[in-house]
Amino acid sequence: MDAAVSTELDGLSLGANATRERGGQTAEQTETQGQVVKRASSGESKKRVERETKEGIDCRKLENFSSWYQQVVIKADLIELYDISGCYIFRPWSFAIWEKIVEFFDAEIKKLGVQNAYFPLFVSERRLRTEQEHLEGFAAEVAWVTKSGSSELDEPIAIRPTSETIIYPAMSKWIRSHRDLPLKLNQWSNVVRWEFKHPTPFIRSREFLWQEGHTAYADRSEADHEVLQILELYRRVYEELLAVPVIKGTKSDRERFAGGLYTTTVEAFVPANGRAVQGATSHSLGQNFARMFGIYYEGKDSGEKLMPWQNSWGCTTRTIGVAVMVHGDDRGLVLPPRVAPLQVVIIPIITKSASADVISACEAICSCLQRANLRVKFDDRSEKTPGWKFNEWELRGVPLRIEVGPRDVQAGTATIARRDTMEKWSIRVPNHSISEEEDAFAQEIHQTLVRIQTNLFERASAERNARIRCVSDWGTFMQAIVQRCMALTPWCNLNECEERVRQQSVQDSLAYRERLATETDPSATDAVLSGAVKTLCMPFASELERLGLTNAAEWEAPAPEKQCFACNGPARRWALWGRSY
Amino acid sequence: MDAAVSTELDGLSLGANATRERGGQTAEQTETQGQVVKRASSGESKKRVERETKEGIDCRKLENFSSWYQQVVIKADLIELYDISGCYIFRPWSFAIWEKIVEFFDAEIKKLGVQNAYFPLFVSERRLRTEQEHLEGFAAEVAWVTKSGSSELDEPIAIRPTSETIIYPAMSKWIRSHRDLPLKLNQWSNVVRWEFKHPTPFIRSREFLWQEGHTAYADRSEADHEVLQILELYRRVYEELLAVPVIKGTKSDRERFAGGLYTTTVEAFVPANGRAVQGATSHSLGQNFARMFGIYYEGKDSGEKLMPWQNSWGCTTRTIGVAVMVHGDDRGLVLPPRVAPLQVVIIPIITKSASADVISACEAICSCLQRANLRVKFDDRSEKTPGWKFNEWELRGVPLRIEVGPRDVQAGTATIARRDTMEKWSIRVPNHSISEEEDAFAQEIHQTLVRIQTNLFERASAERNARIRCVSDWGTFMQAIVQRCMALTPWCNLNECEERVRQQSVQDSLAYRERLATETDPSATDAVLSGAVKTLCMPFASELERLGLTNAAEWEAPAPEKQCFACNGPARRWALWGRSY
Repeated sequence: MDAAVSTELDGLSLGANATRERGGQTAEQTETQGQVVKRASSGESKKRVERETKEGIDCRKLENFSSWYQQVVIKADLIELYDISGCYIFRPWSFAIWEKIVEFFDAEIKKLGVQNAYFPLFVSERRLRTEQEHLEGFAAEVAWVTKSGSSELDEPIAIRPTSETIIYPAMSKWIRSHRDLPLKLNQWSNVVRWEFKHPTPFIRSREFLWQEGHTAYADRSEADHEVLQILELYRRVYEELLAVPVIKGTKSDRERFAGGLYTTTVEAFVPANGRAVQGATSHSLGQNFARMFGIYYEGKDSGEKLMPWQNSWGCTTRTIGVAVMVHGDDRGLVLPPRVAPLQVVIIPIITKSASADVISACEAICSCLQRANLRVKFDDRSEKTPGWKFNEWELRGVPLRIEVGPRDVQAGTATIARRDTMEKWSIRVPNHSISEEEDAFAQEIHQTLVRIQTNLFERASAERNARIRCVSDWGTFMQAIVQRCMALTPWCNLNECEERVRQQSVQDSLAYRERLATETDPSATDAVLSGAVKTLCMPFASELERLGLTNAAEWEAPAPEKQCFACNGPARRWALWGRSY
Repeated sequence: MDAAVSTELDGLSLGANATRERGGQTAEQTETQGQVVKRASSGESKKRVERETKEGIDCRKLENFSSWYQQVVIKADLIELYDISGCYIFRPWSFAIWEKIVEFFDAEIKKLGVQNAYFPLFVSERRLRTEQEHLEGFAAEVAWVTKSGSSELDEPIAIRPTSETIIYPAMSKWIRSHRDLPLKLNQWSNVVRWEFKHPTPFIRSREFLWQEGHTAYADRSEADHEVLQILELYRRVYEELLAVPVIKGTKSDRERFAGGLYTTTVEAFVPANGRAVQGATSHSLGQNFARMFGIYYEGKDSGEKLMPWQNSWGCTTRTIGVAVMVHGDDRGLVLPPRVAPLQVVIIPIITKSASADVISACEAICSCLQRANLRVKFDDRSEKTPGWKFNEWELRGVPLRIEVGPRDVQAGTATIARRDTMEKWSIRVPNHSISEEEDAFAQEIHQTLVRIQTNLFERASAERNARIRCVSDWGTFMQAIVQRCMALTPWCNLNECEERVRQQSVQDSLAYRERLATETDPSATDAVLSGAVKTLCMPFASELERLGLTNAAEWEAPAPEKQCFACNGPARRWALWGRSY
């Protein structure tokens, strides 16, 4: 049974087809498992944090999101700040989350026949300049090495911002015949983009970790198929591992990958501040890079030289930041069980008289859950109070806490607390000489973790869905935007129109802020997001169906009489707009 | 049984205590398994290579080692050259070997409680300068970023050559109390050392991949214990995974890690050119870095500020190059089964009449071995001849080949060929409707792979052992060196003496070359290695015992009357000397 428990959690499906858990159901379910002892109110928790530790979060997520986020990533031991701006240290608590993502994604792409390789960190200026549009997309952010030791290099060498220009000259040597195709490569690596925008841990940093896939196909439709296969894996990383709902779609021309043909994306959303986040992207490069880097192969039928169809696709450590932003609360981090470095923490409530019994009860529970392959820790530190430990593990987001006190030992029970809902209830502890009881107990804990995972996804989906507005004119569009929503609009799909929307939205937001400042409380203007609105994606029809918005055909191509919400020209696509990281 | 097969190979122990296979035994064993059909002679194989493909190695390992190595790493698809000197592309065929090493080592250090993290690629000049001796050890090789986009940075930023100066300032924040110790961190990353020596793929490159462990202990003896625990893991990487024998020992003062207290090492040896290679190092840093970076903690008993004892340890992609150099032969790569991306390749010998039967027999064998978790490929390319395929997979080092022809199908047999010994014999193929037969067949293939792994290690050990000379005077020392051996000597263990040995050995080698040129064939001088001789390590007594050289006590500290082979001062240690990469 041990193996079965672990497999089920690892294979937990949280996609659109997963069994859904309705809002109120969680509390009812826990009542059937035992007595619901207490649901800590937010006020009560705040008091405890302030009383027992100085290390809690000292602001509220909904009141000052940016400060809340900075505090969470540092105080929950995810990040350590570093003395080079825009660079961060990934502490074990966050790196372990990345390892879970790597493990999942790496196994999935290997099933697709992708092979890992490793290409150099450096690229010569000449190579980087080969594809002009591509270079323009990255030029401003490239870091250049010009010296080694005390000598100047003959020519400056760039640090990879991405590796198309590094990998494709090699591909041009490896691809000779149609028999060399498809060629499917991936690397796990660090890349550097010397951004000048405000850095945000995980979300926007000058160095980040990612995987980058680079593939080449003889057949265009197979290449197109892979773009979507990979995008589906990215959806699963977000929805199944991180419990973060995303919307799949195509990027507008303005937002697509520099030098590529089209870009698909999974777009996440942070309800707390109304900003969307590009989750991960899967690009069709068409034959553009093949042409620039001279990648040709001999076809099946003749000696003719053909160009392959190429894709590239990447997913970064940004994933971790998105999960923190979406699930965290005023107590700190809330980790989805599938990626949590620890899933269960066991805390003894020790009094002078009964410490040995309590400790051995905790140890028995701990080994029972370890045998079931759950990630569990017995926090036996004697110098910390139980309250201090509660706060610490809540801050660090451990999904489930088990408390064992002297009365529990006598009654053969323990108290369980869920991090996501803060519910507490009593549970029977197994007699550890009876393996069936132990199995049933481990199974119950496992099922609770599954419920937490499902609940996080459902809760985040409901919050996200409530922030999508279907609008067809400029006035309601801007209203949605200033109210921190995403707007879904019929759109002409023209570059110039998107550019005008960006500019107009900046002006209109400023005007809205000024009106607010005059009409109401001047401090309320802080709540208005500034910055330009852009297209997040043009969602796939199937995604809009998944959102329950309308029928697929209508969304794929709007009715001919529909007009663009912004320029009143003929609408060609439905587009999702918002402010974005 | 499937799982058992795979576990046994994964857990295959090839250390000093493993069951040994004596030189001649292999052929006898294969005869008991079936009829030994043929053992290809070297001349025969050369002819085949030249006739059927232009891609074989066109020089001999023992005649022109350097050219042989360059050809093997490129033609066996391990490396692709790159347009920045000293940087190489790791193709999937070599990266898969690295993945096996990572998988093993990562699991082992996690058992020791080490946690993975990730620290930035960049380090400020100020930090890099904190530890002066450490900086001096790396300063000449540091690559500096001075520009981003088209702007100059305010101050140049270094790319990590190693991460002590990046990690320890963070450790000084994380370590407050004795309860925070031990702290055990590791990262898998790329580092850059802009070397000016002749670059060699895997062995010496400007960027390489590695893991670097960084740990801190309250207790000095626990820290010392860990240095050796990690060194033992490095030994296992070389001996058990790569089948390369190594010697464990301590580095001399001149060769120890810059800024550290002492360095332990596993030293490998390449018999073909007589060069030693530093395999991986595990350093005690003492309290030196703690002092420089202000790492202090509060002790158990009092409020006193104490400094932890620190270690750092690293193992790089050099491992791959060492295995290539040690095991490869004139046909190309020879891969140890435990790290081989493919362990078995199945090649159909097709004639016009019987192709369908042959193919389905190959497919049946392939799925049988896949079910047993062996890494197997059925090479069904119709455009290549069997001979071409034999050459290719021999060049790429696949440990075992299975050939199936029409007569095999009729007889219910297949032909097996070992890459390490080039032996071929006939084997009965299982009836695939009888699962016991399939299990027995998979088990037999698995056992053959185990024998190959053992044979590679034993063969390399015998060759290496034959090249260790115990010498106690300068004349025999230089004789050993010019004959491409390592020399084990009683030594004074003084820095100045090692420096003199380096200088004198360069002069004496030159003189020897000149004498050779006069006395014999001038071209024979190419066979004399140039460059200075240095200490490789001072081997642990237990290692010398493992080599069967003498009794432990004598080697740990030479008899008091022994003199240093070089300066005639009192000998304090036994040292192993050689020319090294």
